[in-house]
Amino acid sequence: MTASHSSRSTALLTDHYELTMLASALRDGSAGRPCVFEVFARRLPDGRRYGVVGGIGRLLDAVREFRFTDAELEQLDRTGVVDERTLAWLANYRFSGDIDGYPEGELYFPGSPVLTVRASFAEGVLLETLTLSILNHDSAVASAAARMVTAANGRPMIEMGSRRAHEEAAIASARAAYLAGFTATSNLEAGRRYGIPTMGTSAHAFTLLHESEAAAFRSQVEALGPQTTLLVDTYDITEGIRTAVRVAGTELGAVRIDSGDLGVLARQARQQLDELGARNTRIVVSGDLDEYSIAALRAEPVDAYGVGTSVVTGSGAPTAGMVYKLVEVAGRPVAKRSSHKESRGGEKAALRRHKETGTAIEEVVYAAAGPQPALGEHDRPLRIPLVRAGQQVDEVPTLEQSRERLRAALVSVPWEGLKLSKGEPAIPVVFE
Amino acid sequence: MTASHSSRSTALLTDHYELTMLASALRDGSAGRPCVFEVFARRLPDGRRYGVVGGIGRLLDAVREFRFTDAELEQLDRTGVVDERTLAWLANYRFSGDIDGYPEGELYFPGSPVLTVRASFAEGVLLETLTLSILNHDSAVASAAARMVTAANGRPMIEMGSRRAHEEAAIASARAAYLAGFTATSNLEAGRRYGIPTMGTSAHAFTLLHESEAAAFRSQVEALGPQTTLLVDTYDITEGIRTAVRVAGTELGAVRIDSGDLGVLARQARQQLDELGARNTRIVVSGDLDEYSIAALRAEPVDAYGVGTSVVTGSGAPTAGMVYKLVEVAGRPVAKRSSHKESRGGEKAALRRHKETGTAIEEVVYAAAGPQPALGEHDRPLRIPLVRAGQQVDEVPTLEQSRERLRAALVSVPWEGLKLSKGEPAIPVVFE
Repeated sequence: MTASHSSRSTALLTDHYELTMLASALRDGSAGRPCVFEVFARRLPDGRRYGVVGGIGRLLDAVREFRFTDAELEQLDRTGVVDERTLAWLANYRFSGDIDGYPEGELYFPGSPVLTVRASFAEGVLLETLTLSILNHDSAVASAAARMVTAANGRPMIEMGSRRAHEEAAIASARAAYLAGFTATSNLEAGRRYGIPTMGTSAHAFTLLHESEAAAFRSQVEALGPQTTLLVDTYDITEGIRTAVRVAGTELGAVRIDSGDLGVLARQARQQLDELGARNTRIVVSGDLDEYSIAALRAEPVDAYGVGTSVVTGSGAPTAGMVYKLVEVAGRPVAKRSSHKESRGGEKAALRRHKETGTAIEEVVYAAAGPQPALGEHDRPLRIPLVRAGQQVDEVPTLEQSRERLRAALVSVPWEGLKLSKGEPAIPVVFE
Repeated sequence: MTASHSSRSTALLTDHYELTMLASALRDGSAGRPCVFEVFARRLPDGRRYGVVGGIGRLLDAVREFRFTDAELEQLDRTGVVDERTLAWLANYRFSGDIDGYPEGELYFPGSPVLTVRASFAEGVLLETLTLSILNHDSAVASAAARMVTAANGRPMIEMGSRRAHEEAAIASARAAYLAGFTATSNLEAGRRYGIPTMGTSAHAFTLLHESEAAAFRSQVEALGPQTTLLVDTYDITEGIRTAVRVAGTELGAVRIDSGDLGVLARQARQQLDELGARNTRIVVSGDLDEYSIAALRAEPVDAYGVGTSVVTGSGAPTAGMVYKLVEVAGRPVAKRSSHKESRGGEKAALRRHKETGTAIEEVVYAAAGPQPALGEHDRPLRIPLVRAGQQVDEVPTLEQSRERLRAALVSVPWEGLKLSKGEPAIPVVFE
């Protein structure tokens, strides 16, 4: 078993068949045909009202690093995946096409043309798997996280699910949760890589390490100051809170409760803290929270939520189910025709119509080559340019801007569309 | 937005609180206390009969690369996560403790002591998140994949779910599926990194690129030979099969059907292929398969399965839910006592008892320090040494050996334990 990550290229994060299709196309002369590939979701996960586009920023980084260095070429040669001609072509591969897409943080619905790749067949076909891996993962997490943020109704949310996800997926999950409005993450690499605020204080292990809960609290307060968060449920919560305030004083920052009936415990804790004079000490709850349990705690004196498993696993929908389909060859629309998996051929653009109040009414998807539907005062086009002739455009939104975009987009959703219960997409998608 | 992967260290794939606990413990003098941490699952995912330990090999690689280089220290310093003393300690960090664990490919049940880390508090606490990320992800995929392999009853299985998983998780998923008995993967990097066979031929895009299905098939056969697999469901399957055999001849390797009612279509395809004289042409099916639909196709003339989404997302259980708990400090058992999340203190070992026939009867978990229960002729200890004084031992099984171990372990499961329906764990775990 070897595990060398000797290459930092993203080029082999790819399915075998993309390379064999390329080899065949180079051989028969069709590799250079101008093509349009489109990314879209046929449906939203079971009963969801909207999806959140996540991962665009990561995708653009990955496309830039998509190069076949000696390490990749050697592997393809040694295993005979492709022939000499293809190896030579790959050695010079740099994506030189155009990419348009919904900006990160935008909402999407069934059939929304989330990403459009215009390139030769050869250049475009190679990006299928990588594109879908990133968008499907990050959109799944962002979509679930947005529901949790809505449920939390303004209270701070800390993403702490790294331990329940693949170690690299954990970083992307922290990023997607932050995009969706989470306040901070426990993941240190997400802090380093994306500048996301990181948080955390202590686990039960720290209390168990010490002779007594008081000794553990004293140590933590000495190291981190009284504004720290003390974990009070290792032994007995009432006793833990009493000890916490005794050790840290009434200016203790917060207590965290990680198990039990969180609503009942938060109420008891609030009362106890107030009686002890620690009126400003906040209550942080964690432990198997999802959007439903977060919503159920709305009436309780909870000041912040720590969310793990459910956010990093997309709360029941761990992948967004987007597909990457060839929709146009040399200007001619193409589409699969067998069975019920039909898609619509031709490059598409989209706009969203809104009422005067700003509430979204519908999304209009139309042929990019045809006439653009009238754009009302309150409507807006949804696709933006991301890559031109292989170069990322300057105007790609930052993570902070994408976060703001989602916040604004959620405000535009009709109120039924923000309900957690299962239902139809918040707005219809109309194909013109 | 930056995405520099400038460091190959795994040290920041870690939760913030591990570093703050370390800082407090270094300050109060408890950091050096000899500790034992244990990884276990409180329960199996809803109704599952067994879990499969996955990721041990990846974990050992990651522990070796767990070092704080300038990039990590700079980040921790700049963000003020820890103090000077802690930074100095981290600069010299190398894990120097011992690790025992269930070998990869072994079955586990609720409470099985899957991994044991013996080290100072400081050294052990830092590995919590990384250890859980890897074991929870890989075990979730391996556990789901093993059920699919059982359902396929010896027919080859190709893992092709990369596009439905984070791009790095996709590689680990391919590895876990192979561990569980899958034949091959579509993921090229999994081929490079772990030597797993890769497979794949073409997508609908390749057919759509060409003027006709016949032209696409001709190109593919010319490039890859008649033993290739032709995808026949882009337009009309009956027509597609006729064209495939006309172009490739009766020695065509296989046809792939990716949509529709796969059982009915496989039967029709088999009959048509036989009538056309292509008796050796195999039928590969793909498209939203999981263990249940694989089992449902058992009576159909299907020669191989391509499985995507369900395997990389753990078929409803995307994380194994293992926890990393401090169970011993300086030889004294410790355990959290509040609420219903109790765990058992003290380092534990385990053995599995079998009937004479080789069928497993029960798993016995006992105090590692106490007397070992009598080991019958058909019983076997479950933990093996993995790391001694920071060095990986020579005898850590290879991926191929782990694959063989799981194959043998599944044979030992009582027949009810191999059922796909929900139920109790296949064997009880007895705590002595």
